[in-house]
Amino acid sequence: MFNFFPIEGGLDNVKGFFSDGVSAGLKPNGANDVAFIYSDELCNVNGVFTTNTFQAAPIVHFQRYPQGFKTNFVLINSKNANAMTGEAGIRDIDSIFKSLRAKFPNIHNPIMSSTGVIGYRLKLDKITQAFEKFHLNRKNSDGAARAIMTTDRFKKELCLRVELEDGGVFHIGAICKGAGMINPAMATMLCFICTDAAIPNEDAKKALQRAVKYSFNAASVDGDTSTNDTVLLLSNKRSGVYQKEAFGEALNFLTRHLVLEIVRDGEGAKKLVAFEVRGALNEEEAQRAAKALSNSLLVKTALFGEDPNWGRIASTIGASKVTCKAEDLSIYYDEVLIYDKNNPELDSTTEAKATKVMQRDSFKICCDLGAGNSKFTAYGCDLGYDYVKINADYRT
Amino acid sequence: MFNFFPIEGGLDNVKGFFSDGVSAGLKPNGANDVAFIYSDELCNVNGVFTTNTFQAAPIVHFQRYPQGFKTNFVLINSKNANAMTGEAGIRDIDSIFKSLRAKFPNIHNPIMSSTGVIGYRLKLDKITQAFEKFHLNRKNSDGAARAIMTTDRFKKELCLRVELEDGGVFHIGAICKGAGMINPAMATMLCFICTDAAIPNEDAKKALQRAVKYSFNAASVDGDTSTNDTVLLLSNKRSGVYQKEAFGEALNFLTRHLVLEIVRDGEGAKKLVAFEVRGALNEEEAQRAAKALSNSLLVKTALFGEDPNWGRIASTIGASKVTCKAEDLSIYYDEVLIYDKNNPELDSTTEAKATKVMQRDSFKICCDLGAGNSKFTAYGCDLGYDYVKINADYRT
Repeated sequence: MFNFFPIEGGLDNVKGFFSDGVSAGLKPNGANDVAFIYSDELCNVNGVFTTNTFQAAPIVHFQRYPQGFKTNFVLINSKNANAMTGEAGIRDIDSIFKSLRAKFPNIHNPIMSSTGVIGYRLKLDKITQAFEKFHLNRKNSDGAARAIMTTDRFKKELCLRVELEDGGVFHIGAICKGAGMINPAMATMLCFICTDAAIPNEDAKKALQRAVKYSFNAASVDGDTSTNDTVLLLSNKRSGVYQKEAFGEALNFLTRHLVLEIVRDGEGAKKLVAFEVRGALNEEEAQRAAKALSNSLLVKTALFGEDPNWGRIASTIGASKVTCKAEDLSIYYDEVLIYDKNNPELDSTTEAKATKVMQRDSFKICCDLGAGNSKFTAYGCDLGYDYVKINADYRT
Repeated sequence: MFNFFPIEGGLDNVKGFFSDGVSAGLKPNGANDVAFIYSDELCNVNGVFTTNTFQAAPIVHFQRYPQGFKTNFVLINSKNANAMTGEAGIRDIDSIFKSLRAKFPNIHNPIMSSTGVIGYRLKLDKITQAFEKFHLNRKNSDGAARAIMTTDRFKKELCLRVELEDGGVFHIGAICKGAGMINPAMATMLCFICTDAAIPNEDAKKALQRAVKYSFNAASVDGDTSTNDTVLLLSNKRSGVYQKEAFGEALNFLTRHLVLEIVRDGEGAKKLVAFEVRGALNEEEAQRAAKALSNSLLVKTALFGEDPNWGRIASTIGASKVTCKAEDLSIYYDEVLIYDKNNPELDSTTEAKATKVMQRDSFKICCDLGAGNSKFTAYGCDLGYDYVKINADYRT
């Protein structure tokens, strides 16, 4: 048996990891915009990246390291994505790392990660000048989590303390950002997960891929896939403790918690909605239908309007072309069965009950396709005026 | 050689076709909500329908007629989609048609088409009572075009007079509705095209499929696919005149004109934008990328904000996973080259010029992928506060 629970302090709890956020003057208001994560021992590192064809320069740079490389440093900036900047953008990273290692010779194979506007070169001077403010012995996860925010309304971090039956303890901590452009094949989100578990690298790779599939890749704010999406898992094995099942469950909990934080912070969103599709022919179809629901503009505006317009749910299921006959479909809003297979007409009390469900801050819309035994849950939010406002003038 | 040009009066110009709109009391304000199209000779009929799995009852009813059936009557109602109503919804149509033929015995194989809210049974009494107001000799295309409107801000109709070199003349006319839910695989739109051309049915079928591919199926307001989308082409051959090339070109013109009207009337839309993708490896990839652009929420909100944020265009191209290297991509806003292959940085005069383009009511965003010779143009619009407003409380 094992147990795990959240503890305050984010990455600060994870043995051997240090982090901080500073201001490089990229954000116009002087807020912190550059963060680092440092480990005093070399780490195994695994990454899951955006599937966008135009991967940003930091992702290309990462992938040019030899397979199985070890690192002890991640540098993150907000405000500029360093995307669509070509080879020049990659050379900029090399140039930044040259300055970094000149100041901190023990930094090995540094990784960069960027978020912000596409199509502009990084301001190298500002970033390298910010290195003067770096102290690699800082434990300031809160500051790092805040420095990587863009349109986020709140910082996102979590640490789990995992206790094994034999008394062994390890930690998994993370900082994360993401609010808009959260999409069905990975959000514009960055997530840096650090663990002191003594995890074999092959386990880490598999656990990360599985966790991302059911968390970040199940989230949607607006269906757009960014050029910069990155989830990194760094492990320095400092605790000397590991148990596979405990690690997997804790990692799933951590990533699912963080993705719900991201969706809840969806640009302009007021409601967090889980779209569960069950009774699907197979998991691929369940996933396709669930993501279609979480991405549908008509569904999202109906959520905003608190209108139990289940016809839009049904229409979206139909548009996703999964195996489902209308006469086998059931639709629930939490506990309210609003569409009962071939029952063609709502009674008004059912609709009133569903309207009450929709007034909740978070609820579940469940569609049983009646075609098989597979299921998938996607996470989405409503779309209101504030989404338009935030995204119509994002750059100004 | 041939020539064609628009003439006023919609369907009224097409020989042997009659139409009108009346009020059945489905719309609460007493506006007209039921329309008919009647031909005094039997017509060949071809249809293209939604790809949504849950096709509405009228579409299922149509498809139960034997292949190659002939008709002389189309009945259209707005306000209620008769979708997700199961076999009961189909029996309702049969019941309506029984009353219809009792009153008008010369009606043969009538077709129904519905648009409106999903999940409610039709009000049979109201619809059959409205038959009292039907006069099959009416030429009131304007009235029919208005009766089928839902959230449309303006009616949509067009007639083309096609003149052949030998003096022969035929007509193609249409009425059409659609504003919201306009999507990449067919809009929530209804379009009824009538022609007096003496077109062989095999030609009519092919011409319709081709015309729909490059018009209605290239349009997007919000990426949702409705349960009711229908395009019908009825031909009664009354003119005795036909020429294949002239018919094809005129039909393409007609459908393209109407789809632009639909997109321009996109719920809350202020701008009409053509997304041309060229230099694609093949047409499928060109179409995929063009539709991804016209569906992207981030692109649409940037259009609304008149922000030449070409990074979102590039990111969407990348997310569509078509063959394209960043260093081969060029992006134009009308005449302004805003992203020139691997040129990583905008100069500010270019951005200012692109902003001016975006202030136009309609313009073209062109992406040259540099991967091949295929192209496709999709049509889209901006997304602003009014879209949210209209769709958050559509049913109230």
